[in-house]
Amino acid sequence: MRIALDAMGGDHAPGPIVAGAVRAAAADPELSVVLVGDQAQVEPLLAGAAAARDRLEILHCTQVVTMDESPIDALRKKPDNSISRCWQQLAERKVDAIVSAGHTGAMVAGGFKLKLFLKGVKRPGIATIMPTFQGNSILLDVGANVSPKPEHLYQYGVMGDIFAKHIFGHKKPKIGLLNIGSEEHKGHDLAKDTAALFKKSPLADQFVGNIEGRDINKGVCDVIVTEGFVGNAVLKMSEAVFEFVMKMTAKELMATLQQEKALGQQALQNIIKRYDYHETGGAPLLGIDGICIICHGSSGERAIENALGMAARYARAQLNERIVKELAAGPVSSGKE
Amino acid sequence: MRIALDAMGGDHAPGPIVAGAVRAAAADPELSVVLVGDQAQVEPLLAGAAAARDRLEILHCTQVVTMDESPIDALRKKPDNSISRCWQQLAERKVDAIVSAGHTGAMVAGGFKLKLFLKGVKRPGIATIMPTFQGNSILLDVGANVSPKPEHLYQYGVMGDIFAKHIFGHKKPKIGLLNIGSEEHKGHDLAKDTAALFKKSPLADQFVGNIEGRDINKGVCDVIVTEGFVGNAVLKMSEAVFEFVMKMTAKELMATLQQEKALGQQALQNIIKRYDYHETGGAPLLGIDGICIICHGSSGERAIENALGMAARYARAQLNERIVKELAAGPVSSGKE
Repeated sequence: MRIALDAMGGDHAPGPIVAGAVRAAAADPELSVVLVGDQAQVEPLLAGAAAARDRLEILHCTQVVTMDESPIDALRKKPDNSISRCWQQLAERKVDAIVSAGHTGAMVAGGFKLKLFLKGVKRPGIATIMPTFQGNSILLDVGANVSPKPEHLYQYGVMGDIFAKHIFGHKKPKIGLLNIGSEEHKGHDLAKDTAALFKKSPLADQFVGNIEGRDINKGVCDVIVTEGFVGNAVLKMSEAVFEFVMKMTAKELMATLQQEKALGQQALQNIIKRYDYHETGGAPLLGIDGICIICHGSSGERAIENALGMAARYARAQLNERIVKELAAGPVSSGKE
Repeated sequence: MRIALDAMGGDHAPGPIVAGAVRAAAADPELSVVLVGDQAQVEPLLAGAAAARDRLEILHCTQVVTMDESPIDALRKKPDNSISRCWQQLAERKVDAIVSAGHTGAMVAGGFKLKLFLKGVKRPGIATIMPTFQGNSILLDVGANVSPKPEHLYQYGVMGDIFAKHIFGHKKPKIGLLNIGSEEHKGHDLAKDTAALFKKSPLADQFVGNIEGRDINKGVCDVIVTEGFVGNAVLKMSEAVFEFVMKMTAKELMATLQQEKALGQQALQNIIKRYDYHETGGAPLLGIDGICIICHGSSGERAIENALGMAARYARAQLNERIVKELAAGPVSSGKE
């Protein structure tokens, strides 16, 4: 298993990014990581890698896409940026997967520019894992595709279904469409047309219809399909509310508890450890011919370690082969749009 | 102040709905409530109203819109439903405001059917109050308008601005557009065209540009403008995450705390009391010629009491007169679409 990691991507890169790679390589003896970035900055950070050092190589590049840049412009103006170099490694089949905590838009644009899509996929989508009362669900798309067509959303259902089956281990995942109400007549044309597509597809008996934002955490379905704009807003809002509630609760607990403040803090830490995005690692860009994991900009070494582990797990689960097969059986034409 | 209340609307109607009206009337001697609903069910619930009884009258009607009905169909097939009767009271100027915890879609459709819009308003929008680290912000639209045009979103900015000024007391509210990133090039055409409208409007220097879902609770702006589909998903998700985190935290605290479990529970209750939607009462449908408050289906008597208080406060703040004036000064044509 060989993974290219954008060593320069992320708010705190390259320090914690490289440290995460060192941890992941130490934990998985079959893993090799190609650290894509500025050799002068990356090399010293590998000093403590010990036995894993020979599975950590550096691919030097001179440029970085910064967070304030337009993705399209940045990829054009900076041909030697670390994100494009990762994508090239994937396109040339030199790696099985790529991972970056850099500019999400540039990561997506890099794949779209190369058209490195799986056979039959019209638009890749970013999937994210959402904790629920029943375990984990997958929500997609959360930002790769802000103006999708119904057939794109249907394909997200197909990809999410395979993810839920082979990563979560659900036998027959339930698929829901995020809408503003559960009744059939609700929402805009995109929602109505997408529901119609699901109903005449091989996924018809797994499709539970419309679900609302309030249903996600209840775990009423395993796969939640939505357009990138909505998914992105919902995801970021849920992270923010989590943080907000945790901070407010911590303040209130410290003001209320007397002798057991430390225990109260411990309980909150347990919650944060269980639900914080740092633990899940990253979000796969599904529909790419290869594995692509996009991490939070604020990722620390633990998040990067987890993202590398996630990439290796996805590659081993052969999700892509299954997606291609399933798409070929569906109602969406594979012709050009 | 005279308010029509849909006595039959809500998961637990009419019991807590009528009880909320009794409390509100007892608390505000200038308030009269017209309870719109089935006289046989409502009348016995007024037995304990005491001195407020003569400011609580019943407008009998025979039908109720149920939650599983299509709003348009329901309003047509059930002409004597409590929501339509409330709207008629408002249209005939017999009341200053209407309040319902019934079918949200039917409440909105009732206003749209009568075209009871304020002068210059193209589409009313539902506004909701979001708690932030800096106090309260207002988010709109959260579901009245799922396929808006840029000029509709601009008008939500105008209405939200007036709300934030005259209800929250902010001198110069900051207005943000919910998008998938803060950079100018982000998002779909609707977002880009809406931003352009704000920039050439009298609100240009209050417009902070794009904000993300994660920014809402930080309080980076006082007014968050978005399309109904996105606002609805974000709002419901944030309520669900709040509930999810509270339940998980309660469980963890009870398992961790030893002698101070009761204090821990007290702290959580304080948080719930502060941020729960039951406390805010309801969401105003802004842009209506009159006051219209839409409450959660699960509203109890406290939520209804608060919603009635909110309606009275809005009417007294003369929001509508200010909205009409401000819209006349803006860049959006008041001609027909």
